[in-house]
Amino acid sequence: MTKPLPVGATIGILGGGQLGRMLAVAAARLGLKTHIFEPGTNVPAGDVAHQMTTASYDDAAALRAFGEAVDIITYEFENIPTSALDILEALAPIHPGRNALATSQDRLTEKTFLQDLGLQTAPFADVTSMADLDAAIAQIGTPAILKTRRMGYDGKGQARIMAPGEAGAAFDAMAGAPAILEGFVDFSHEVSVIGARSPEGAVACYDPGENVHSDGILRTTTVPAKLSPSQRTDAVLIAAKILNALDYVGVLGVELFVTPQALIVNEIAPRVHNSGHWTQNGCTICQFEQHIRAVAGWPLGDGARHADVVMENLIGDDMDRVPALAKSGAAIHLYGKAEVKPGRKMGHVNRVIKAVGT
Amino acid sequence: MTKPLPVGATIGILGGGQLGRMLAVAAARLGLKTHIFEPGTNVPAGDVAHQMTTASYDDAAALRAFGEAVDIITYEFENIPTSALDILEALAPIHPGRNALATSQDRLTEKTFLQDLGLQTAPFADVTSMADLDAAIAQIGTPAILKTRRMGYDGKGQARIMAPGEAGAAFDAMAGAPAILEGFVDFSHEVSVIGARSPEGAVACYDPGENVHSDGILRTTTVPAKLSPSQRTDAVLIAAKILNALDYVGVLGVELFVTPQALIVNEIAPRVHNSGHWTQNGCTICQFEQHIRAVAGWPLGDGARHADVVMENLIGDDMDRVPALAKSGAAIHLYGKAEVKPGRKMGHVNRVIKAVGT
Repeated sequence: MTKPLPVGATIGILGGGQLGRMLAVAAARLGLKTHIFEPGTNVPAGDVAHQMTTASYDDAAALRAFGEAVDIITYEFENIPTSALDILEALAPIHPGRNALATSQDRLTEKTFLQDLGLQTAPFADVTSMADLDAAIAQIGTPAILKTRRMGYDGKGQARIMAPGEAGAAFDAMAGAPAILEGFVDFSHEVSVIGARSPEGAVACYDPGENVHSDGILRTTTVPAKLSPSQRTDAVLIAAKILNALDYVGVLGVELFVTPQALIVNEIAPRVHNSGHWTQNGCTICQFEQHIRAVAGWPLGDGARHADVVMENLIGDDMDRVPALAKSGAAIHLYGKAEVKPGRKMGHVNRVIKAVGT
Repeated sequence: MTKPLPVGATIGILGGGQLGRMLAVAAARLGLKTHIFEPGTNVPAGDVAHQMTTASYDDAAALRAFGEAVDIITYEFENIPTSALDILEALAPIHPGRNALATSQDRLTEKTFLQDLGLQTAPFADVTSMADLDAAIAQIGTPAILKTRRMGYDGKGQARIMAPGEAGAAFDAMAGAPAILEGFVDFSHEVSVIGARSPEGAVACYDPGENVHSDGILRTTTVPAKLSPSQRTDAVLIAAKILNALDYVGVLGVELFVTPQALIVNEIAPRVHNSGHWTQNGCTICQFEQHIRAVAGWPLGDGARHADVVMENLIGDDMDRVPALAKSGAAIHLYGKAEVKPGRKMGHVNRVIKAVGT
């Protein structure tokens, strides 16, 4: 049994964006310090972290100093270079572990892992050449979507293929990066489950949220999601199955497409997830604190929800709406980003729709 | 009309204890930066503030640099030296204003202010000499309590007088400090109202909480308090009257003794208050964010409560209970204090008893 991290200990966090910022606040609430490692300057987590290291992921000396200064390491994003993990792993435990990172960093590995678990995914095929793509289209059909295997987020590194004639342009858009072709899934809506697992294997999931995207970016998450009671149970069981198969420690996000026949796993994220931000105003223990509790070996919260919530992302000049939102009584969460850019996540707002009596 | 402080602006906070820490987190949530001024080192707010100035309140140069670096100033405690306020006031607006500070820094001024407002207080008398004390006892009777006019908190600077023969010892305990004698009030319980007022005069109060003290230190606050509907209304009206009379900007705590006949004002605190910590898990907008909203000129939250909550302070070696509390599903809030001392507030825990349907 893992010994829980004592009050006053330091959690190292790779990445200083808004997720790192909200993790740092959650850690502080539990009397734990945070040390952020982040290449960028003037980043959201810098305002609230106990300590910052500003250095690149290929700065071995900075990585070593960071690894030696912290008690455990976690991260806010999954695209951490393997070489950095090699250095850090020797110095402090990393949660979630490399298994989870390796699985989710690569769409092909991820889809194969999910299929091997007996879970349903979109049909997919490995694409490293134009010949592969032609064969994949013959097998999967169109419309389909070509995605780089690595480093994609918020709709980046993706090209839709509505008809076979668009294959060449889509392949060129990958710029030589290894890719996979995914068949379209005819789903009614997308939900996600935010689950957590402790080092001892305890699992706790939040109620699934229903996600609406636009331009490849999450706009809103609504809890409760439109799901039948059995779908709700299935969604949670899918998340638990993934958490256990990865021997996972921390919070994981699982995106699911809902069809009348099945829940189809779209993707997993080995970290706190934008679609779990509603928990900050819907639960006593939010996803950020849940993640900190898990990686610190503390007991997990049970995921109980006390309210129906709609989370809306504030993107780009949505920031102009903040004064009006402040009047609405909604819970505003801003990330402290100095510069507003189109498509940039600047904050989010949680509207508590109604309390859930117990 | 005051212009609201824009996102990215800096709020200066005098005092870096747990209240400053929780104010800093609330400010960060709204995209506002905080700069803490605090004489002590390694203080709770240091972990989460954007910037710290470690200097004494008589360091004029440090005060000036701080005042020039921030957009507005607020504070987490009321005993700020007048000389420091003189310097700061010329450099940035201070909320709540000096009127509120002057009133609450001195028990005699405070009680006189309350009486002039038509509010009920314990009987009291000014005591600067042993002759004053004898006269005060003759007028008020015993049991009574002698308190220093200034700098008292958590039961410090107080001496009980159970019978006239104890007057000499009590007077000596004041060590020459100006004092007031307060008559005992035969109250059934104590409640407090946490109210807020905006620069435009909007007032919002939270539901009163019921406080239990031991050894002069707050142990628990329970919401809802045992109050009749008319007492609840009266409690809120009393807080609003005080807020308006002081032309107050920010959050104010008002402690009330409940008797069958009346609500008797015990004391006021011109700041966020320990008895309002339950709002962190009972309300969408907690007292810390409410204070930041008020002093920043943002719209106030409405004070709506979504849950019944019991707040318990973790004092001294109550910290040994943290592992068990973590298992209980309660919301834990620790202050990051390195050293556990008897009587020291180390954190608090909010137990959500049940959700309140809307």
